Amino acid sequence: MNDGIVTEKTDGTIVTPRGFKVAGLHSGVKRKRNDLGVIYCERPANAAAVYTLNKIVAAPITLTKKSITAHEKVQAVIINSGNANACTGKQGYEDAETMQRLTAETFNVAQEHVAVASTGVIGEAMPMDKISSHIDKLTLNTDEAAAEAFGESILTTDTFTKSVCFETTIDGNKISIAGAAKGSGMIEPNMGTMLAFITTDAVIDSPVLQALLNEVVDRTFNSITVDGDTSTNDMVLVMASELAEHEPLTTAHPDWKNFVYAFEKVCQVLAKQIARDGEGATKLIEVEVAGAVTEETARQVAKTIVGSSLVKTAVYGSDANWGRIIAAIGYSDVEINPDTIDLSIGSIPLLKDSRPCEFSEEAATEYLANEVINIYVNLHLGEEEAKAWGCDLTYDYVRINASYRS
Amino acid sequence: MNDGIVTEKTDGTIVTPRGFKVAGLHSGVKRKRNDLGVIYCERPANAAAVYTLNKIVAAPITLTKKSITAHEKVQAVIINSGNANACTGKQGYEDAETMQRLTAETFNVAQEHVAVASTGVIGEAMPMDKISSHIDKLTLNTDEAAAEAFGESILTTDTFTKSVCFETTIDGNKISIAGAAKGSGMIEPNMGTMLAFITTDAVIDSPVLQALLNEVVDRTFNSITVDGDTSTNDMVLVMASELAEHEPLTTAHPDWKNFVYAFEKVCQVLAKQIARDGEGATKLIEVEVAGAVTEETARQVAKTIVGSSLVKTAVYGSDANWGRIIAAIGYSDVEINPDTIDLSIGSIPLLKDSRPCEFSEEAATEYLANEVINIYVNLHLGEEEAKAWGCDLTYDYVRINASYRS
Repeated sequence: MNDGIVTEKTDGTIVTPRGFKVAGLHSGVKRKRNDLGVIYCERPANAAAVYTLNKIVAAPITLTKKSITAHEKVQAVIINSGNANACTGKQGYEDAETMQRLTAETFNVAQEHVAVASTGVIGEAMPMDKISSHIDKLTLNTDEAAAEAFGESILTTDTFTKSVCFETTIDGNKISIAGAAKGSGMIEPNMGTMLAFITTDAVIDSPVLQALLNEVVDRTFNSITVDGDTSTNDMVLVMASELAEHEPLTTAHPDWKNFVYAFEKVCQVLAKQIARDGEGATKLIEVEVAGAVTEETARQVAKTIVGSSLVKTAVYGSDANWGRIIAAIGYSDVEINPDTIDLSIGSIPLLKDSRPCEFSEEAATEYLANEVINIYVNLHLGEEEAKAWGCDLTYDYVRINASYRS
Repeated sequence: MNDGIVTEKTDGTIVTPRGFKVAGLHSGVKRKRNDLGVIYCERPANAAAVYTLNKIVAAPITLTKKSITAHEKVQAVIINSGNANACTGKQGYEDAETMQRLTAETFNVAQEHVAVASTGVIGEAMPMDKISSHIDKLTLNTDEAAAEAFGESILTTDTFTKSVCFETTIDGNKISIAGAAKGSGMIEPNMGTMLAFITTDAVIDSPVLQALLNEVVDRTFNSITVDGDTSTNDMVLVMASELAEHEPLTTAHPDWKNFVYAFEKVCQVLAKQIARDGEGATKLIEVEVAGAVTEETARQVAKTIVGSSLVKTAVYGSDANWGRIIAAIGYSDVEINPDTIDLSIGSIPLLKDSRPCEFSEEAATEYLANEVINIYVNLHLGEEEAKAWGCDLTYDYVRINASYRS
């Protein structure tokens, strides 16, 4: 895909692409950790976004969608964690508007160019006193400490900040694409309680960026699942500052594939970080399904496997219980041939033509003790393939979610 | 529904309907508990059955479906637990046939009138030496001890035997409908690893019985979920000995509604027992959704709520986290009005027109400590309603499934 042109992961952060600054602080919505963050761009960035498919949509999503649809530009994003501002009625929408207005005033940008995102508990009124009094305390910066403070400010039950940066070359000039995300619970295809912010200095129009995001999101963010619950607040937002020097990117640009490759990598790395940090998770599960008739059915089988509670607990228990994997394939609602399925974990074949292989239980258990578990399936029906990512289901998932509000 | 004619729950068991005998014993497939059982009818009973929708179908299901489809009669059912005889290829099918043949010989019935069912681990060869040498040790009886021994023989990780009996009156004569079931893991709409056997002495043709079963199964067995995993081995089998004295039952029979009522009650009680005994469960969750446009969409919303890992853990933690319930309603794929939802748990209203009610957290937590939790939703879109049943998600679910095979 990369044709010798260097596209590589760097140590950069969300502020590596030219033009972006961030900040994060503790306003008091959460007890201790940072809970208020901002992304700022020195000029209105071309924007693209995808939103939750949940029919109960949180106020900040409704507001942001309206702004971006109308103006296709974002210059600042204000994000709080600890309270989702969902199911909060008219007051909730007004609160989101207040956050938008105060951010516009503080950073001197047009109100319609401010995106708003919230994550946390559903159905409680926003503690606006805390938020309103802290927006002007946000001190923009481009250093690593600021990126980390911002990364923390968007987390809920996440255990680590999620960040990635890739560089590639367009018209011989270096550009960067970077991202920060939060995940953890309510993570499921079609946007979980997942927020991802992607910045780039590439020159690219909003409609082109939106089309690319729509395409890539299915292969990345929509291919992860933690618990099958879809949140009311999800959003992936991309901002292009256009401060790099090159001809505007379109699908006809000779270096388009470099941008796509780097962009998809950024999305994929963030998605995998989210899956790896699923609530209570100890392991990342990557399922690759090949030999499918279409990419969509391959993805559906992969997502069904990685979403199965029984597969997830078996992985947690390091139990090579392939019967649960094949049962999941069988109920995935995809037409399969029950007699032609190959299945392996890591390099250990478990099934060939749907029949058990002889394998060492010890070796399988040892493999399943790793932090990243690969499951490979070949349906032998066609040429298409897809991947999905998830995590194991553990005691800690139950502990975290049986006591989330307390 | 009952029009004054007495339909009532009795202390009866699967052998209360005239003509049926059962037995159960320990053959050695499982370490300790009974693992081999039989249901016998003194004459070929009119049969109806529904089977797993998983595309990976276990050998005994394939064989039984073939026999019942061709002959519409069952005189004996042989069931083992501990090994599912699934993904066992040609040998597995031959093993199921051997079970069928040995049962036919032992109890002197036609081989095509023997149904076979298996439940347990997937993908391991059937220990046929143990099963073959124990079928003729099964001693048929009609007493309570035999019913209990049979009930035990079909269990896997279940913690109690599931049994129910109802009586009703047809043409002035008493008839009985009774059932036994097993559930526990891999329980999900469209047949989990669920086996249910229903006996009746009513006079009713197989096609009439099949049509009734198809209708009732959606409102009962297919309205429960434990973990979203659908097994390869599920079956609900109904046998009518026709030893009662009355005009054959059809939808035109004046007492048809009595039979339907009692039949649905038997299915519903077994389904709720299965949900209550979901792996690791401490609570039965009953979700009732009203105000829907169709019964199907009401059921879909109810099943989405009761299947949500986040709702299940909140119930386990006695946390009135209604945000998770409304999020589940929103991602249920049913058209809703996000502004007209009423929600209560027990008699405590939590939401009215999608807006939070003031309620006592203490009272809600106290209510959620009960063993049966009722969640009521009104969508205010139409007149239809439906129920679904499930259980909480606990540490023990993880413990049981992280170590099932060891």
